[in-house]
Amino acid sequence: MLQEDEQIMRIGVLTGGGDCPGLNAVIRAVVRKGVATYGHEFVGFQDGWKGPLEGLSRPLGIAEVRGILPRGGTILGSSRTNPFKIENGVERIKENLAAQGVDALIAIGGEDTLGVATKLHELGVNVIGVPKTIDNDLGATDYTFGFDTAVNIAMEAIDRLHTTAESHHRTLVVEVMGRHAGWIALHAGLAGGANVILLPERQFDVDQVAGYVEKRFQHQYAPIVVVAEGAQPLDGQMVLHNQELDSFGHVRLGGIGQWLAEQLEAKTGKEARTVVLGHIQRGGTPTAFDRVLATRLGLQAIDAAHEGDWGKMVAMQSTDIVRVPLADATAELKTVPLERYAEAEVFFGS
Amino acid sequence: MLQEDEQIMRIGVLTGGGDCPGLNAVIRAVVRKGVATYGHEFVGFQDGWKGPLEGLSRPLGIAEVRGILPRGGTILGSSRTNPFKIENGVERIKENLAAQGVDALIAIGGEDTLGVATKLHELGVNVIGVPKTIDNDLGATDYTFGFDTAVNIAMEAIDRLHTTAESHHRTLVVEVMGRHAGWIALHAGLAGGANVILLPERQFDVDQVAGYVEKRFQHQYAPIVVVAEGAQPLDGQMVLHNQELDSFGHVRLGGIGQWLAEQLEAKTGKEARTVVLGHIQRGGTPTAFDRVLATRLGLQAIDAAHEGDWGKMVAMQSTDIVRVPLADATAELKTVPLERYAEAEVFFGS
Amino acid sequence: MLQEDEQIMRIGVLTGGGDCPGLNAVIRAVVRKGVATYGHEFVGFQDGWKGPLEGLSRPLGIAEVRGILPRGGTILGSSRTNPFKIENGVERIKENLAAQGVDALIAIGGEDTLGVATKLHELGVNVIGVPKTIDNDLGATDYTFGFDTAVNIAMEAIDRLHTTAESHHRTLVVEVMGRHAGWIALHAGLAGGANVILLPERQFDVDQVAGYVEKRFQHQYAPIVVVAEGAQPLDGQMVLHNQELDSFGHVRLGGIGQWLAEQLEAKTGKEARTVVLGHIQRGGTPTAFDRVLATRLGLQAIDAAHEGDWGKMVAMQSTDIVRVPLADATAELKTVPLERYAEAEVFFGS
Amino acid sequence: MLQEDEQIMRIGVLTGGGDCPGLNAVIRAVVRKGVATYGHEFVGFQDGWKGPLEGLSRPLGIAEVRGILPRGGTILGSSRTNPFKIENGVERIKENLAAQGVDALIAIGGEDTLGVATKLHELGVNVIGVPKTIDNDLGATDYTFGFDTAVNIAMEAIDRLHTTAESHHRTLVVEVMGRHAGWIALHAGLAGGANVILLPERQFDVDQVAGYVEKRFQHQYAPIVVVAEGAQPLDGQMVLHNQELDSFGHVRLGGIGQWLAEQLEAKTGKEARTVVLGHIQRGGTPTAFDRVLATRLGLQAIDAAHEGDWGKMVAMQSTDIVRVPLADATAELKTVPLERYAEAEVFFGS
Repeated sequence: MLQEDEQIMRIGVLTGGGDCPGLNAVIRAVVRKGVATYGHEFVGFQDGWKGPLEGLSRPLGIAEVRGILPRGGTILGSSRTNPFKIENGVERIKENLAAQGVDALIAIGGEDTLGVATKLHELGVNVIGVPKTIDNDLGATDYTFGFDTAVNIAMEAIDRLHTTAESHHRTLVVEVMGRHAGWIALHAGLAGGANVILLPERQFDVDQVAGYVEKRFQHQYAPIVVVAEGAQPLDGQMVLHNQELDSFGHVRLGGIGQWLAEQLEAKTGKEARTVVLGHIQRGGTPTAFDRVLATRLGLQAIDAAHEGDWGKMVAMQSTDIVRVPLADATAELKTVPLERYAEAEVFFGS
Repeated sequence: MLQEDEQIMRIGVLTGGGDCPGLNAVIRAVVRKGVATYGHEFVGFQDGWKGPLEGLSRPLGIAEVRGILPRGGTILGSSRTNPFKIENGVERIKENLAAQGVDALIAIGGEDTLGVATKLHELGVNVIGVPKTIDNDLGATDYTFGFDTAVNIAMEAIDRLHTTAESHHRTLVVEVMGRHAGWIALHAGLAGGANVILLPERQFDVDQVAGYVEKRFQHQYAPIVVVAEGAQPLDGQMVLHNQELDSFGHVRLGGIGQWLAEQLEAKTGKEARTVVLGHIQRGGTPTAFDRVLATRLGLQAIDAAHEGDWGKMVAMQSTDIVRVPLADATAELKTVPLERYAEAEVFFGS
Repeated sequence: MLQEDEQIMRIGVLTGGGDCPGLNAVIRAVVRKGVATYGHEFVGFQDGWKGPLEGLSRPLGIAEVRGILPRGGTILGSSRTNPFKIENGVERIKENLAAQGVDALIAIGGEDTLGVATKLHELGVNVIGVPKTIDNDLGATDYTFGFDTAVNIAMEAIDRLHTTAESHHRTLVVEVMGRHAGWIALHAGLAGGANVILLPERQFDVDQVAGYVEKRFQHQYAPIVVVAEGAQPLDGQMVLHNQELDSFGHVRLGGIGQWLAEQLEAKTGKEARTVVLGHIQRGGTPTAFDRVLATRLGLQAIDAAHEGDWGKMVAMQSTDIVRVPLADATAELKTVPLERYAEAEVFFGS
Repeated sequence: MLQEDEQIMRIGVLTGGGDCPGLNAVIRAVVRKGVATYGHEFVGFQDGWKGPLEGLSRPLGIAEVRGILPRGGTILGSSRTNPFKIENGVERIKENLAAQGVDALIAIGGEDTLGVATKLHELGVNVIGVPKTIDNDLGATDYTFGFDTAVNIAMEAIDRLHTTAESHHRTLVVEVMGRHAGWIALHAGLAGGANVILLPERQFDVDQVAGYVEKRFQHQYAPIVVVAEGAQPLDGQMVLHNQELDSFGHVRLGGIGQWLAEQLEAKTGKEARTVVLGHIQRGGTPTAFDRVLATRLGLQAIDAAHEGDWGKMVAMQSTDIVRVPLADATAELKTVPLERYAEAEVFFGS
């Protein structure tokens, strides 16, 4: 299908931010179509923006992308390096691209990675963005890959916990990812039949939650409470009665989930336990939904690059894959609207 | 939330056609919101339209829908009974509804079930439809529940078959569901990294398929061919050389997949084997996507019933749940468009 | 099969201690064979020894055990109540058994539950024991049900974490169950390809662990460290630098795994993260191994009861199900022998 | 750990027969311990005995076995080539081993592969055998790896089919692997709650099976019948009423399972459907049980080779890995004993 008169490009690919099931599927689709259909060449930049910044690259051809479709993580590595926070960062990237003969970049990442891509585009670098966030909180796209996988992992954990909760007449608090948006908590909670779901979008009243829990016990069933890591109680309800940061300044395991379990145990008189799902939500093989979405985004990204349609992000809208301006993606955090939360509230406490 | 002056309805629920993961999630959402938020009463009709036709019903309250969210199948049973093909069928349904004091029906089903619902609505029965087809081939809705589960089951099977294909240098033909539309084949094939995908929407050239298979072997990798049960070769390529119907007039196992494997073995000289996934695609616990979709459709269905918005089908459009006229659902079979198939063709044979 | 002259017994069944996948499979097998083959009657005592102590029972027949084979948890509920720590506990149990016409008990549980069973047997109660511990640390049986399920859940989590570790060049510490015996850590670590495995049976040198981790990074691969919750560093290495108990006196989440991750991060200069699998290891549907084992133990238990072979525990030895004296089960904790740990050490750090 | 005065060997590894989850885990353990602990060198022979016969080999070191633990299939390829059926086969093998400087072979395979190994050992080749059969029918070992994985896959399929059977009031016949021994059918049937299990070890009476099915329907539950592919009805019950061989002489899909479903439909008047699990039972990632077993067998095999303990097969007995004479493994097919079948019969039809 390669046209005689078409220009062969050399395209760099990079993945930035937290890893996410589906990254490899995007890389594979970009390279497979780019080589087979258009005849372009590819370079893999390592560890996000650190790669072009430091000139760290590796070969990226058909052979390198064989067998990676079902694999989690990213064969290119990732980092949170931001070239705009590094002296002469942009110049160094431009120099390295020129030195390696790279004409354009396909950047796969979340808010930070795409924010850098947006600014680089404005500074004259040929960039296409592919949205990636396990939290599903990027605007301009209905879904991001990785989200469906995370929700399924969380749901399977909740499914498992139901039997323990009932056998021991305990409350089980499941803390899932979501610092600023509660999409994973909402979907995993709905899918897992949680009795209460708590999101960052709306502060919760710990007494109301305890009320739901008690009501559930009256029906002889044990409650599962799903709480996003970024959910917060009403102002004044949480008094930090113990040291929440470890010796390295990280938030300790046992954040909001642990706190909530202690509160519920005290308020209801029933044992409560916490499970913090943590990193298992972002690892491993992607679901079919995420593999198909990631593959289609990759195909659209290489089409956009081939056409020189720079400064665009590929996105899912309904069942279509479309292109939107890169700047749209990061304009606003996509949080859970109140009417979606209201749907879930129908099931609370009963 | 129940208003003093609102009328309490007695609503019948039924599930028709082939079973599909998510049916119980719909029933649960309808009953949970219907009882807790609106105060309505419910009757479960058994085995699809057979239930109201023969007056077969069972109690359906909060207790009956506890714990059914993760369960496949339908607690109400199903059948393919069509009251319009039975003498006085409609009259008998109307009589039984009246006798049991049932004011309205929520009918969950596919083309046939919703076709009946549409006609009953025109004849004065209060009906709301909920779309259900594992094949994803109903119009007016982006997705139907059950489809995502089926695609994941098929993808996991394909994942497993890759290692066998490579260890034995064999072609493996995987036959998946899809008599008239190839959505399952398309998505499972894309997600599973199939080397060829064959759909009912486009006749295939068996020599071209053999060519893809041979090309794949040249790369030292063994091919997986995903074929929808309704896919057909070009006219004249298939000569029925053996009896394809069993003694009960059913199509024998070993339909198109078996035929294709025999052809590929003959044409390429490499061993070929068939796996027919069959009923395991429609059983078992739903994925998170399907549980959330089914739950949201159920919530919207009871809202529509509560508002007396009869003759509507609930549907998913982008991330919203909307209502469309029942007649729209069955107006046209939603098949795989050519551009979606073209996306997949990028990966064929390589 | 019921003999005319055989005496029909009324047998109580109870489950004690932490819940464990397979409990329901035992109950089902006991009741199914007990009713269908021998004609006995059954009573379900609720919440472990609390049931006969307080006379809390429920009907237990064929109908009650339908569909419970794949379900985790226990339909009878569980507790850690010990009648020997309660005034007149044994007398009350004897009275309640007499009052309900119960001739014998089948007690399913771990060290504590079977310890009570042993003493009750010595005091004249007809008891058969079925061993249950997710930790696999009971003597006299090769395996206990629940263990295989827990190991698979932990292995799947480790599988998922590999890709995250590699994408981010991080150390991931996975804390699994095992306070006194490291079987889950050993098997999950071996199955998951862990780079270091730490057990309660042998104190570890945190500097040696850091050495393994650094060696692994030299190969460009990121390390997974699997640590049993009861593993301990060499004397003097762990200085409790922060409050490890929460306001209810429970050990805080972030026990040994959290401590170890902090140490490894400090010693190697590479980011380290912890995942505490917690309760998801003991919930949910059992694996085939556990369902078959639990079913066979249940069949043997009802055979023993039918024959009046009281004071026995059923056990797995090689592929056989045998009977051993109840006292044997709890005589000694079955810990991981050094030669089994040595097998695993072959893989450390490389 | 390498001793100065120890001889470094060059050891060939091969995998023969049908692929089986766990083969790669054996290869990895052999090479990891062989290189790291003993300092030996390895050669991978391709496609079973075809490799040494034709001198087809590939490098096999630490790098080649990285990441293969969770992967199904075999990185060495497999075949059913038998050198004793090829002219000068043994001489050619001896020549190729000498030419490549190979001192010994570790052969991983089933009855046929180990039969060749036994004879080669008698003819002076240094051989260690590792047992492999998904059917679990090799003597001298309690279990073979791959079996547990196959049983779990079949069980999960049966779990899924229960809901379809009940929703449609149908009989579902599940055909699983097992030409000569019914271990997979027995364990998957027990674990999946099958209502009838049919094995090659005992001819079945199709009327009795129909009786079980009818009895099950009387309880309002739909039956699942698990049948091993090698199971046979009583003499005279099966009249081949249609052509059972395809145009290539293979047994057609739709063997005993299809036949049985037709019979049950005719005899009970209830719809019956067949699912043939086929190759998905042998592909994909191994369970924890199989990964641990395969790893431990590999470690023992390299120990035996290091010690020059030729002519042995490694085996699992209770929880130990032991060595037995190679000839023992293939002396007798290990079939399901009648008392194990009797355990399962307790559950038939109810």
